[in-house]
Amino acid sequence: MGANMARRLKDCGHPVTAVFDVRLEEAHRLAAELGCAAPATLPEVAAAADVILTVVSDDAAMRRIFLDEGGLLAGAAGRVFVNCATVNPGVHEEVAAACAARGCESLEACMASSITQARDGSLYLMVGGGEETFRKVEPVLRDLSKSLRHVGATGEAAKVKALVNMVMNINTAGLAEGLGLGVALGLDPTMLKEIFAQTGGNSRVLETDADDMLAREHECWFSAAHAAKDSGIANDLARAAGVRVPLSEATEAQYRRLVAAGRGELDKSAVAELTFPGRCED
Amino acid sequence: MGANMARRLKDCGHPVTAVFDVRLEEAHRLAAELGCAAPATLPEVAAAADVILTVVSDDAAMRRIFLDEGGLLAGAAGRVFVNCATVNPGVHEEVAAACAARGCESLEACMASSITQARDGSLYLMVGGGEETFRKVEPVLRDLSKSLRHVGATGEAAKVKALVNMVMNINTAGLAEGLGLGVALGLDPTMLKEIFAQTGGNSRVLETDADDMLAREHECWFSAAHAAKDSGIANDLARAAGVRVPLSEATEAQYRRLVAAGRGELDKSAVAELTFPGRCED
Repeated sequence: MGANMARRLKDCGHPVTAVFDVRLEEAHRLAAELGCAAPATLPEVAAAADVILTVVSDDAAMRRIFLDEGGLLAGAAGRVFVNCATVNPGVHEEVAAACAARGCESLEACMASSITQARDGSLYLMVGGGEETFRKVEPVLRDLSKSLRHVGATGEAAKVKALVNMVMNINTAGLAEGLGLGVALGLDPTMLKEIFAQTGGNSRVLETDADDMLAREHECWFSAAHAAKDSGIANDLARAAGVRVPLSEATEAQYRRLVAAGRGELDKSAVAELTFPGRCED
Repeated sequence: MGANMARRLKDCGHPVTAVFDVRLEEAHRLAAELGCAAPATLPEVAAAADVILTVVSDDAAMRRIFLDEGGLLAGAAGRVFVNCATVNPGVHEEVAAACAARGCESLEACMASSITQARDGSLYLMVGGGEETFRKVEPVLRDLSKSLRHVGATGEAAKVKALVNMVMNINTAGLAEGLGLGVALGLDPTMLKEIFAQTGGNSRVLETDADDMLAREHECWFSAAHAAKDSGIANDLARAAGVRVPLSEATEAQYRRLVAAGRGELDKSAVAELTFPGRCED
């Protein structure tokens, strides 16, 4: 994801001065491609640019790169960090506070799209953080996005993103139940898919995931492990807010079953492996 | 529903000879409007027409009108029954067998649309039963439908219908969780709805139910009680087939909570009453 964002920004004429990855070899390969540096440490990354985009995998990684010793914030005064990972909204708030204390600024720019959209600059981006900070980096974000929206204060975009993925995951796990049961009942799944599309069963995930569920084509776009994590973020927010979300809890449990069965790196459509007859017996 | 189908058929020039309702007054009012009979007993209904359309509320009502003494089948030889209710596929099979034994024929014509579509002849109809029987009544069904599809043998259309409603109900209950949690988190629900529509959170029920959830506008199109019944049919099929459907079970449980709270006659969108802060404390 980060690599494609860097490629896109270079294509658009932005000076890409440095790239970083915990797998340093990956960073060196990309740096060679883009003609930029690949520093070995995070403070060097922050020193190399005015605007730093981060895309990490989870809450722990976000805290590590921002809050730990030897992280991005040593000598980062004046920088703007744009954080694209889907993490708990509270973590964005922690990071924003740490940035403010070090004289730098941060935004969350939550993406509701995937790797190909990063490459061609058509990401759907929801931004949380200060309006003034947003204006500073807006030209960079515009070149990454076909739909850019400043949602609100720090944490707000991450909340919206969690809710989008919560509903998307529910619809995906629900579709897997409908198609899986249909196959178990001996119905033609292609007919079933067509009828869902024409009726109250229609959804975005029907368009994106139904064929993959039928064909067991689970090359990863958005992993089952990420789906478990994102539904988990929403469910944590729900618990804290005292809202009952039994479907979202059932969805998280399904994705956690998939992860426990060693299938967490498959695409989220692989939740169908749990509902189609004769597939996954865990 | 049945009244609007009768009005539509009369508009299209079909001779509507008799109407029936357990609330006889309703039947008399409609009969006066259409200029037809309103017999007091079911055998008289069957005697009055070659093709009889039925729309009842549940399995028990279907069995009562077809299988009980004094039901439709006394002297019904040669008739074709077209049964439009959403009931268990097995009940359609029982009725078809009883019809065959009495020298008449039956079809299921499952509707994935509602009262207004019945009035203007734009129902989405999925038909299960014999091909030859289907051909006999196709001209009548064409005038009721903008999308008519012979799905397969007796019971098959009812299975497809159960799956459509199962997925629709999951998406509805899931949407209620996403919007309800968003409101609890202090997000602008209109903004949230717009973002869902543009991302992986989009669905047909977002188009049909989101505004009603926000406005608490639950005038009945498709009742919560019917949603509970239909998800229950799908869950019964899943149990019999050995397919695990945790989301559909959670959905049925939500609708049963709504029914238990005395809100079963509200529209299915009222499931939001269970997830929006400060609404329904059961």
